[in-house]
Amino acid sequence: MDKIKRRKLGKVAAGGIAATAVSTTLASPAISQGRQEWRMVTSWPKMFPGGGTAAERFAKNIAEVTGGRLTIKVFAAGELVPAFEAFDAVQRGTADVMHSTPYYWQNKAKILSLYTTVPFGMTNYESVAWLRYGGGQQLWDETYATFGLKGFLAGSTSVQMAGWFNKEIKSAADFKGLKMRIPGFGGEALRKLGATIVNLPVGEIFGALQSGAIDATEWVGPWQDLAAGFYKVTKYYYWPGLHEPATLNEISVNKAKFDSLPKDIQQIFAWACSDEHVQLTAENDASNAGALEVLIKQHNVQLKHLPEDFIKAYGKAWSEVLQELRDSGDALTKKTLDSYYKFQREQMAWTRIGLQEYLNARLVGFRPT
Amino acid sequence: MDKIKRRKLGKVAAGGIAATAVSTTLASPAISQGRQEWRMVTSWPKMFPGGGTAAERFAKNIAEVTGGRLTIKVFAAGELVPAFEAFDAVQRGTADVMHSTPYYWQNKAKILSLYTTVPFGMTNYESVAWLRYGGGQQLWDETYATFGLKGFLAGSTSVQMAGWFNKEIKSAADFKGLKMRIPGFGGEALRKLGATIVNLPVGEIFGALQSGAIDATEWVGPWQDLAAGFYKVTKYYYWPGLHEPATLNEISVNKAKFDSLPKDIQQIFAWACSDEHVQLTAENDASNAGALEVLIKQHNVQLKHLPEDFIKAYGKAWSEVLQELRDSGDALTKKTLDSYYKFQREQMAWTRIGLQEYLNARLVGFRPT
Repeated sequence: MDKIKRRKLGKVAAGGIAATAVSTTLASPAISQGRQEWRMVTSWPKMFPGGGTAAERFAKNIAEVTGGRLTIKVFAAGELVPAFEAFDAVQRGTADVMHSTPYYWQNKAKILSLYTTVPFGMTNYESVAWLRYGGGQQLWDETYATFGLKGFLAGSTSVQMAGWFNKEIKSAADFKGLKMRIPGFGGEALRKLGATIVNLPVGEIFGALQSGAIDATEWVGPWQDLAAGFYKVTKYYYWPGLHEPATLNEISVNKAKFDSLPKDIQQIFAWACSDEHVQLTAENDASNAGALEVLIKQHNVQLKHLPEDFIKAYGKAWSEVLQELRDSGDALTKKTLDSYYKFQREQMAWTRIGLQEYLNARLVGFRPT
Repeated sequence: MDKIKRRKLGKVAAGGIAATAVSTTLASPAISQGRQEWRMVTSWPKMFPGGGTAAERFAKNIAEVTGGRLTIKVFAAGELVPAFEAFDAVQRGTADVMHSTPYYWQNKAKILSLYTTVPFGMTNYESVAWLRYGGGQQLWDETYATFGLKGFLAGSTSVQMAGWFNKEIKSAADFKGLKMRIPGFGGEALRKLGATIVNLPVGEIFGALQSGAIDATEWVGPWQDLAAGFYKVTKYYYWPGLHEPATLNEISVNKAKFDSLPKDIQQIFAWACSDEHVQLTAENDASNAGALEVLIKQHNVQLKHLPEDFIKAYGKAWSEVLQELRDSGDALTKKTLDSYYKFQREQMAWTRIGLQEYLNARLVGFRPT
């Protein structure tokens, strides 16, 4: 079949929705014959449980369903660019899409953390309600558009663990002088309590913890923390994860490249992201339960609850970080904060009498079977 | 373009994945030219908030993305068949797909309730983890296959409200002689406490409550309950919804019809269901928060907490219903119960230190902003 015929069929394949015209002068290996070959960069090691495996699954599914009209080659952190340069790579077109999480791009715009998670913020459920029905996605689009990007929700770790510590934490004062790996706003608030904050991609955390370069680290939850092996260095594992109650993943694209896709592939891409949101969240929840048992029973990890005075002090520290952010004078930041917190206050009232009270009452009435 | 050429193009459109062969002898209006026209029945009134609007949205999206290769005409409850006959309609081929919820089909197999929700059971999150990573979907497939159906998860109401009552409930004893509309296992357990249980589709509840034919009803949550107008009849609105902690919606198909779709459309259909799961859940969560405020502030609804002795008595009643189900001797029922409860016990341990403790600690540390 010659190229012209193929291209014509490609348009018909879009099924009545006009495919984006690809002029012959633009034809290149990447877009010849109506086919696009994309590069995906990630912030995760190759096939690392969670983001690493999800990126590969997504790429495989998209190629199958589009019959190869869109194929995506996945590059793990460091293969094409380092973990924390995925954003730049997609922005400048070195890659077309990334699997990551928006709070890694705080150096671009602080407000981006709201699309991952913030301390004492909305849960996965509540955040998704904000994105889809509270104007959150439009605000994310507005922010990312200034960088030539477009973001899609693609998973949640659910509530994370507070992290691994080389000593017991008995009060808020124990954070003074503590050197901890904790990214985003969670780290900024902890700094107010006297901690020294660093951020490292997952591939570098274990070594830093082992060498004593850091005293503590948070990463994700039981499943991914077990895979990272932190239990080999320390046994104190704290909960609850006040700093990251949702931690949403993103599959984010170079907007110009995405807009050039046929309309049907754009929608298929978006739905594949929705499926990843369901799938990766389920994978985290299912795997965390089993991993928690392994950590406790096989590796003698000691689960510890954060002290109450810390919870209050951390809440106060976080409100100070928030106030500084509000005072920064950036209009989009203020608009986003207003939208997020109006929504969170309403959601908290509903969650309180819905999910939260159900979980508490379940412990009263449930009979093991 | 003649029919033969179109059919050929239809196969190419599947993009390398072989489309199911449609022989000319089988050609009918519904499948001519590689196009399928499906009928969807629902258990909801026309455009009723939640299921009703979601069904229409799903049909519209599928037609757009497949470029009309699959179109779905939606029939509200009563338009083609009554609300509670959707299952039969899809089984016998009167319709091809339904938007409903599996516990409406308890008369077919009691165990189907587990794919909607059960008292003191798993939340939306936990249930989805079970479906995707705990063998739940395979068990659902096995059960539905005996009826020639295949089910897809397509939304959650999140935790429901306990319901509307024409009198205050001060203890478990107040359920004696109470006539309540409550479907599924939630109703069966309540019957053990002396209540008289009926099930009615939503279109018939308001009249029954108003006429005094029933003393109480549960329906969904603030958003859908506001739309149903129950606050006009009674002001006592109880929480938490121990009887329905997840309430999953289904988009379920006639399996033979689904298997005859081209492979790419099958996957697109599945992803559209995943997107509906995200979308409809978000819509419920977002809308419940606003509706709760309207019910309290504009309609003077009184929120009431179920008494503690009822929570315990209801837990005991539910464990008795469960035991009877186990004792029924059906192998698939036992296998499904074993799978569900092994998974729930593990999830509860994880939820306890993750989501649940986060929600409780958030109330301690959150500062309104």
